[in-house]
Amino acid sequence: MATARRTRLRPEERRNQLVALGVATLADRPLAEVTVEEIAAEAGVSTGLVYYYFGSKNGLHHEIVRRARDSMLHASEPQPELPPAERLSNTLSQLVTYVREHGPTFYSLVRGAASGDEEVRAVIEDARRQQTERALAVLLELGVPDTELLRIAVRSWVALAEQALVDGGINSDLAADELVGYLERSLGGVVAAVVPGAAEALLGASAHSAKA
Amino acid sequence: MATARRTRLRPEERRNQLVALGVATLADRPLAEVTVEEIAAEAGVSTGLVYYYFGSKNGLHHEIVRRARDSMLHASEPQPELPPAERLSNTLSQLVTYVREHGPTFYSLVRGAASGDEEVRAVIEDARRQQTERALAVLLELGVPDTELLRIAVRSWVALAEQALVDGGINSDLAADELVGYLERSLGGVVAAVVPGAAEALLGASAHSAKA
Repeated sequence: MATARRTRLRPEERRNQLVALGVATLADRPLAEVTVEEIAAEAGVSTGLVYYYFGSKNGLHHEIVRRARDSMLHASEPQPELPPAERLSNTLSQLVTYVREHGPTFYSLVRGAASGDEEVRAVIEDARRQQTERALAVLLELGVPDTELLRIAVRSWVALAEQALVDGGINSDLAADELVGYLERSLGGVVAAVVPGAAEALLGASAHSAKA
Repeated sequence: MATARRTRLRPEERRNQLVALGVATLADRPLAEVTVEEIAAEAGVSTGLVYYYFGSKNGLHHEIVRRARDSMLHASEPQPELPPAERLSNTLSQLVTYVREHGPTFYSLVRGAASGDEEVRAVIEDARRQQTERALAVLLELGVPDTELLRIAVRSWVALAEQALVDGGINSDLAADELVGYLERSLGGVVAAVVPGAAEALLGASAHSAKA
């Protein structure tokens, strides 16, 4: 990146560039091993400048993991114009595409949950909370009754989805539609485990959307 | 523990006692914060003796997490004399009882997955692998075809179960049988998401065992 050395950027552009370079390094190594020195070298700036923007290595790591989380949440953003079951199906399909294209970034998010750094873990936990809310919104719209057990079930399904995306999306060459179908139907199965009757609404609706 | 100061133990007994004290401390704080000094003080021995047995703080931590993992696996050991679906039901019931009685130990295992220490993470991963094998054995005995997707599904259900046990077993006062029922039926739902026909064998069998 010889040209980067001579590029002058405005502060906000420089900050963005440094975080983007940090996210890109996740393809090669875990977040915990990303250093201020390598990011500075990649950008052709001094380590002092990186410290100026992020305060410390941890500060840099927090921004990298936030950016990675936001890219995953953005890529799987529900389409509000779709009816609930199709919206879920679309979200899961986008998520599988994202994981297939950005495996290391997604994996770094999952492994970030295993960080010793409390703020990194909080960023990941927030992503899980948002994905739980998205799935819950679909179910409530379909008329599934909102109970404590339902919330526990949906949160536990998000843990299932994360593991299935690592095992099936990154560590195997399973067909994308098989994986999407599994994620979709497993949520149906989890709801059926909580409210036998109400689940058929989701399963019926999602079978319909699969045919459409 | 004033009397402990005067107790003379044989090496294997002393080692066991130190690990047991370590597991007990997990009720109050995460594994990462358990120190050689406090374990030595609890046992009324020198810190040198603790280092003699475990080499380092990390060595002590590895033994504590292994003991915690073994106690969880032992408490949820499948009863070989039971038919497959009832064996699963019994295992899940034992697991919920264990989590209710030893919440902090179980939680430390789940959080241990978030350790920066690779060996601690490997011990936890081994527990997940064993629980996956147990559930898979039940399904295969019931005639569910062994496919790559089935293995991904069962492994992802173990992640679901872990999260549901934390949220429903430790962080809520949900009735134990509601939680057991959810775990059991969610596995049925996950299998149904992979092999629609074959799952009914498990669900039918487990509904039968619930009535028995």
